[in-house]
Amino acid sequence: MKTVKIAIMGFGNIGVGTWQGLEINHDAIVEKTGIDLQITRILEIDVDRPRPVNPDRSIYTQNVADILDDPEIAVVVELLGGLEPATGFMIDAMNAGKHVVTANKAAIAANYERLMDAAKENNVLFRFEASVGGGIPVLTAIQNALLANRFEEVMGILNGTTNFILTQMTEGGRAYDDVLREAQAKGFAEAAPTADVEGYDVANKLSILISLCFGRRVKVQDIPTTGITGVTAADIEEAKNAGEVIKLIASARMQDGNVVCSVAPQRIAKTHPLAGVSNEFNALYIRGNIVGETMFYGKGAGPLPTGSAILGDVIDIARQLQGGLR
Amino acid sequence: MKTVKIAIMGFGNIGVGTWQGLEINHDAIVEKTGIDLQITRILEIDVDRPRPVNPDRSIYTQNVADILDDPEIAVVVELLGGLEPATGFMIDAMNAGKHVVTANKAAIAANYERLMDAAKENNVLFRFEASVGGGIPVLTAIQNALLANRFEEVMGILNGTTNFILTQMTEGGRAYDDVLREAQAKGFAEAAPTADVEGYDVANKLSILISLCFGRRVKVQDIPTTGITGVTAADIEEAKNAGEVIKLIASARMQDGNVVCSVAPQRIAKTHPLAGVSNEFNALYIRGNIVGETMFYGKGAGPLPTGSAILGDVIDIARQLQGGLR
Repeated sequence: MKTVKIAIMGFGNIGVGTWQGLEINHDAIVEKTGIDLQITRILEIDVDRPRPVNPDRSIYTQNVADILDDPEIAVVVELLGGLEPATGFMIDAMNAGKHVVTANKAAIAANYERLMDAAKENNVLFRFEASVGGGIPVLTAIQNALLANRFEEVMGILNGTTNFILTQMTEGGRAYDDVLREAQAKGFAEAAPTADVEGYDVANKLSILISLCFGRRVKVQDIPTTGITGVTAADIEEAKNAGEVIKLIASARMQDGNVVCSVAPQRIAKTHPLAGVSNEFNALYIRGNIVGETMFYGKGAGPLPTGSAILGDVIDIARQLQGGLR
Repeated sequence: MKTVKIAIMGFGNIGVGTWQGLEINHDAIVEKTGIDLQITRILEIDVDRPRPVNPDRSIYTQNVADILDDPEIAVVVELLGGLEPATGFMIDAMNAGKHVVTANKAAIAANYERLMDAAKENNVLFRFEASVGGGIPVLTAIQNALLANRFEEVMGILNGTTNFILTQMTEGGRAYDDVLREAQAKGFAEAAPTADVEGYDVANKLSILISLCFGRRVKVQDIPTTGITGVTAADIEEAKNAGEVIKLIASARMQDGNVVCSVAPQRIAKTHPLAGVSNEFNALYIRGNIVGETMFYGKGAGPLPTGSAILGDVIDIARQLQGGLR
């Protein structure tokens, strides 16, 4: 049995979900792969915050060098969020020969080239399945099983908060403000919901998808982005009468050699595969030139689903380190 | 640039689709991976049948030794269908050190252990993404990106012919025989439709899914299987009035340490993610203990979608042969 040691940077909800996921399924992972994954370091300032899991105090550190200089740590999972220090820490980790897994869509979208270059220069792996669509294994599919395709179009519902709000407005005929307040009370929307409701969160995810599907870089600030704050109950009613639903859609396609993309509320036919994606669920529709239409559906957020994607990336790295064919 | 040479056994619709897919996307695959895939041998008796592609006559052979003894061929794609000689040829190819890719669900379901053992003994790769769900990359997801999960349940619509018939019966209020005749006339159903309409095709796919998701072997003959020949327009109408649709559902779940499984027409709520899967589309719903509910949707058959899955498997093998991290 091969042991692979992991450090987590940032022990918020997703870090806790990753820890829990490994706690629950450590033995199943050993059974399936023969690999013993161990989280041996956590970089976190707020050690005392109540959490549903209780790592031994000794594995916490406030000094990033404890991770970078530890030759036993093979994989760093960055879950700090935000651009800095997250990006710098990821590059430092790669320079120290660590493989890096992250869920940090903002840092990837903003610093895609720097992060890819650092991975290449250091011959380490850089994986970010959890950054788009939470637990849905869509980036892996684009880069592996669907790789024989030229991608023609991607179209997704990639934010659970806004999809919850639009679903509730549609099903209950309610107003935006009313549903937002309920979503905040229930914890489905943040107290400061701007990044979600204005579409910025989705634009980051779309920028990453464009890089992987089309090999082009479109920065977040160059993606025309409209959120859902202007969607009214009347708009939704009008769509409904036309057999359509309003969804916050991220879309991108190649047209005459250019990427045409946007994030905006769109009316889509009730018969479209994305129309039935409700509440906190996410889905990504991808059209490839030989596979045709595909769709991937699942929970786009949440500690355990996101932890599933992070652990999937870690396992893929661990298997490659193990060597041999698989 | 690394060249990987491939032989195809059986040049029917799927073989032609694989050839076409590579013809269309060869250069895109080189761009993305640096690997030059070449089909250098085709085992096929009927060389003269009109086909939409025209491989050079010199690459056809009727002698399997021309493939097994060619040290340049690294990957054998078995598309003969049926149990024999397909299974024997796959094992011979593995014994000759070739990696094997197949779409042959019947052979895998019947001879799973023998094929897996042959791959292990010869230290070669054996891949079969195309055998379940055509172009939908579901087996790869189960074995990689979702591997950190214990799977709790799988539930799928895995046969395009029967889903087409049930969809047409539901939307048009038509009788089974009537729709079957139309499907046969249009080429959506075979002249001898038994394997499809009696559910045997789906049972093969479910047996494979059970092996991968639960690590258990349930043979096709041990899966309770009911086809759609007994579904009446009245059954469909009754379901509709209850807010449900009838689908041919393959399902399996773990219960008290045992696999509970079946293939049968089932009534599912219109709000279920599988309810909207219409006509020739397939979908697989998988519940994992940390990722929760996921669903994968796409074209479950057809030469190009199936070719997409076969080429995805070939590329994965080629990259592993190339070595290094990726």
